Amino acid sequence: MNCELCHGAGGTLLWQNGLCRVVAVDEPGLPGFLRVVLQRHVREMTDLPADERGRLMAVVFAVEDHVRQSLEPDKMNLASLGNVTPHVHWHVIPRWRDDRHFPGPVWAAARHDAPVPAARAVAAERMAVTLSAALSALEG
Amino acid sequence: MNCELCHGAGGTLLWQNGLCRVVAVDEPGLPGFLRVVLQRHVREMTDLPADERGRLMAVVFAVEDHVRQSLEPDKMNLASLGNVTPHVHWHVIPRWRDDRHFPGPVWAAARHDAPVPAARAVAAERMAVTLSAALSALEG
Repeated sequence: MNCELCHGAGGTLLWQNGLCRVVAVDEPGLPGFLRVVLQRHVREMTDLPADERGRLMAVVFAVEDHVRQSLEPDKMNLASLGNVTPHVHWHVIPRWRDDRHFPGPVWAAARHDAPVPAARAVAAERMAVTLSAALSALEG
Repeated sequence: MNCELCHGAGGTLLWQNGLCRVVAVDEPGLPGFLRVVLQRHVREMTDLPADERGRLMAVVFAVEDHVRQSLEPDKMNLASLGNVTPHVHWHVIPRWRDDRHFPGPVWAAARHDAPVPAARAVAAERMAVTLSAALSALEG
């Protein structure tokens, strides 16, 4: 099976357990964009047993919580799409009123290409570094 | 507060309980597009207590399950965005390889404007009618 999330991490690995991993995505203009990727190849959330679905969502929400506490974005966006790569993965995306796509989804056309505020980019780097400690409570 | 999901259903009401409602969305070219809307005004999933978060996601996944069983789409898309209307709501969107936006997200530019196959439109109407019975197990 030629699945890029089976053959690669899908971003910079920040944390993982047996069920899923959290990776940082390098998307221009979107600092703090993370993905929660299921370790094994499953197409849809409803193909997962309910207990694993719950454990995966607990990670998604713990990641959202850490991103919000670290970056205080104007809004959080969560999405499980997988049209190109049908291997369960969640996009966890902090949004700001002044970001390139706001208030559109990040998949809509950009509205400007102004640089990201430097302090926000630095905070996003720090958020990625501290994610692992923030999720340590989930590993037990 | 001027929130359209506090002042209106947000679509055609198909089912509801005390926590949330399921509405059908009339999006051209996207039959079977549903939303799960929290009844009260809360901005982010991580602003909800964990038990309500779990109950809301159980509805989202029950809706996904019903849509899949009814329509057998090529992929399901789930998203909680709320940049325009920051009141928790989930988009539950069946996708087909021949739909207007595939494999892009539905918020990306359309790739064509071919009509929806008639049988699919009919099946989506039937899916909406039968949703309430499919979710009855959740009402207890």
